[in-house]
Order: sequence, then structure tokens, then C-alpha cells
Amino acid sequence: MQLWLCCALLVFVAGGCLAQKPRPCKSPPLLEGSFSAVTQNGGYSAYGKYAYDSILQRIRFGEVVRHDNETFFTDVLMIYQEHVMYLINHKNKTCQKQELATQFHPMKIPCNATFLGQVVLGSLSAPGEGLLVNSWTGETAEEKSKYFLTFTEFGCLPVSVLFNRPETGWVVTNFFNIVRGIKDPSVFIPPPFCNTTLETGEKGDFFSAFF
Amino acid sequence: MQLWLCCALLVFVAGGCLAQKPRPCKSPPLLEGSFSAVTQNGGYSAYGKYAYDSILQRIRFGEVVRHDNETFFTDVLMIYQEHVMYLINHKNKTCQKQELATQFHPMKIPCNATFLGQVVLGSLSAPGEGLLVNSWTGETAEEKSKYFLTFTEFGCLPVSVLFNRPETGWVVTNFFNIVRGIKDPSVFIPPPFCNTTLETGEKGDFFSAFF
Repeated sequence: MQLWLCCALLVFVAGGCLAQKPRPCKSPPLLEGSFSAVTQNGGYSAYGKYAYDSILQRIRFGEVVRHDNETFFTDVLMIYQEHVMYLINHKNKTCQKQELATQFHPMKIPCNATFLGQVVLGSLSAPGEGLLVNSWTGETAEEKSKYFLTFTEFGCLPVSVLFNRPETGWVVTNFFNIVRGIKDPSVFIPPPFCNTTLETGEKGDFFSAFF
Repeated sequence: MQLWLCCALLVFVAGGCLAQKPRPCKSPPLLEGSFSAVTQNGGYSAYGKYAYDSILQRIRFGEVVRHDNETFFTDVLMIYQEHVMYLINHKNKTCQKQELATQFHPMKIPCNATFLGQVVLGSLSAPGEGLLVNSWTGETAEEKSKYFLTFTEFGCLPVSVLFNRPETGWVVTNFFNIVRGIKDPSVFIPPPFCNTTLETGEKGDFFSAFF
């Protein structure tokens, strides 16, 4: 009996020790939030809001983009299960329907990412003054682009994403005002004027919509 | 009597409403923490620790710097009340004593900064998953350099500082692992081998030590 108790305690303690090192995690399946993005060369910056549904693989985001001293608004709905992407123009009440050329990437730390460290943004000296986050690095499988990810320890929520693209150098995306759940699920349904959709025959992906 | 009560209530409610908008704040007087800094052109990056005492106007920081593919270590003690700065070399046990050419700038949001917005890093959907921060912008009085400051709402602790320098473009400094108070106050006393100090006659400031 004592031996069993010892073994059970040993497993418990070992499990506790192993659990000390953060492990790659996956964000909650339904999220809404805001983001800002800026490229290293300063040629592109954006500020927007998004809704994210990893269960039905749908993303909707609207952003104000400043690119080469021009400012414009982009509204995009991506439905990965149907392999379609809608570029919605509310002013003209038109849609551009494109084929989604890439797979859905859930918001997560890839399993092969390297753990860089755990830090507190702000301080744990008093309640409400700090946020525990983990930083990870790695390379994307497809483009061999280097990335740095910072996600919260509790909740696995994105705080900042840096990735390197040959065209623009480093792209820094900051995430904030995240809410679990989707306030209005109809954001994932194309607006009525998208029935008379303009099919362009073009292929698009997350980056072609984003940049 | 009732009129007085009404007036008092009105002032109280008005005060409450005015208090909703964040106001420029000052960080606690004694802090320790870590930071990372990187320039837009990527030519300079640093990672280090600092101790900050705004009461006696002293700053000590040690950092590992990568500059043009060279890596070196810097240890600096700045005593503003005495207008001196020590560049400490632990390997050779030598000091360079320089005159501090600038005034002490406490860690704070300048009174003339423009409030940009309040956001939550992470989420307030669950405890421990979010941090409320305020962002501010403005121009430095001396150099007319633009800056963006993000400080915590509770505690007025620095999270990130961006400022523009003509030499390097944007410099992004992130602060983390902040602790209120000073663990070891002797960090503000020059090491014993600084008695035989090498007085260079050079003038230095925070930036000449930092970069």
C-alpha cells in the first residue's frame, strides 16, 4: 500500500515538474478582437477587427490600411471549408469572390516551435498590473519564414506575432481587446449583395487579403 | 441643505466622469526589471536588466548588445545628482567616468502627451488573461522626436516605448518582469575598482550609454 502511495506521489511530483515548462498551445476556438500590423520598412500599416471561428474554419476581418500614403478599407470573409474568400465593398455594394488557395491555420503555437522564454508584461507586484506571456520562435513549413510568437500563459491568447516576409522584411502584428466567443454569428455569412457576386477566377489567401 | 447635497453629488458624479479618461501618470519611484530594444534598421539590438531610483535620480543597467554583427556587454551606472556616469568593465576591472550632460528624466507619461487609446493585451474574459494598458504619443521637447508610449493602467508601468531617432529610425523598447522596489541597493554604488577611475573628460548621456 505504501509502495503504491509512493509511486502515485512520484508520478504526481514528476508531472508537476514537467508542467513547469510551457508547452505549445491552441487558442480558444471562437474569438473576437482587434489588431494592428506594421511592416519593418514602414510602407504598410493596418488597424482592424476580426472574428475567428476555428470550428467551422471561418475568419472575418475589417481593417483600415495605409499603404504608400494611400488609405483604404478592406472587409474580407474567408470560409475555408468552402475554399472561398469574399472581398466585400460596402460602398459600392459589390463582392469579389476568390478561391482560397491555402488551408486553414488555427491560431496556435506550432508543435515544432522553440520556447524562448516566459516573461511578465508589467509586474506581478500588485494585482491587475501584469500579464504572464510565453515567447516562441520557429520557421514556417512552407516558406521557411522565421517567426516570433508571444501568447498569454493563461488562455493561450495571441499578444504579438512577428514574421519575416522577403517582400516587406519583418511584419509586426499586435493583438488586443480579445473576447472569447462571437457576439454576432452573422458576421460569417456573406452580406445579401454578395449573391450577385463577381467571380474573378483569381486565387487568394490570407496574406493576399491582408496586404 | 438639499441644494448643498445636490451640488456635492453633482461634483462627485462629474469627477467620476472626468476620471474615466486616463491621465498622464508617473511610474513608481523604485523599480527593477528587464528590457529588450531593437532599431528599425535591425543594426542594433539589446537585452538587459535595469534598476531605477527616481528619488535619488540613479539608474543602473546591464545589457548584452548586438551591433553590426558584434556582441558585447555594457554595464552603466548613472548618478544624475552628481552629474556622473560610470561605464564599468568587469573583465578588466576598469571604469570610465564621464560627465552626465543631460537632466534626469523620470519614467512617466509627459503632461503634454496625446492620449491614443486604452486596450486590453490578451482578454478580460477570464482572470489572469489580460492587461489593461494606455497608449500615448507626442514629441520630445529637445529633439522633436516622435514617441509612442504604452503604460499599464494600474501601476503606471512601462510596457513599450517607441521613439524616432534620425540615426536609426524607430527604436522599439519593450519592458517586462518589473518588480516594485530595489532588491539590492548597492547596485547604485560604484564597484570598488571604480575608485581608480579613468576620467575621460568626455560627456555622455542616457543614449550614448544605451547605444
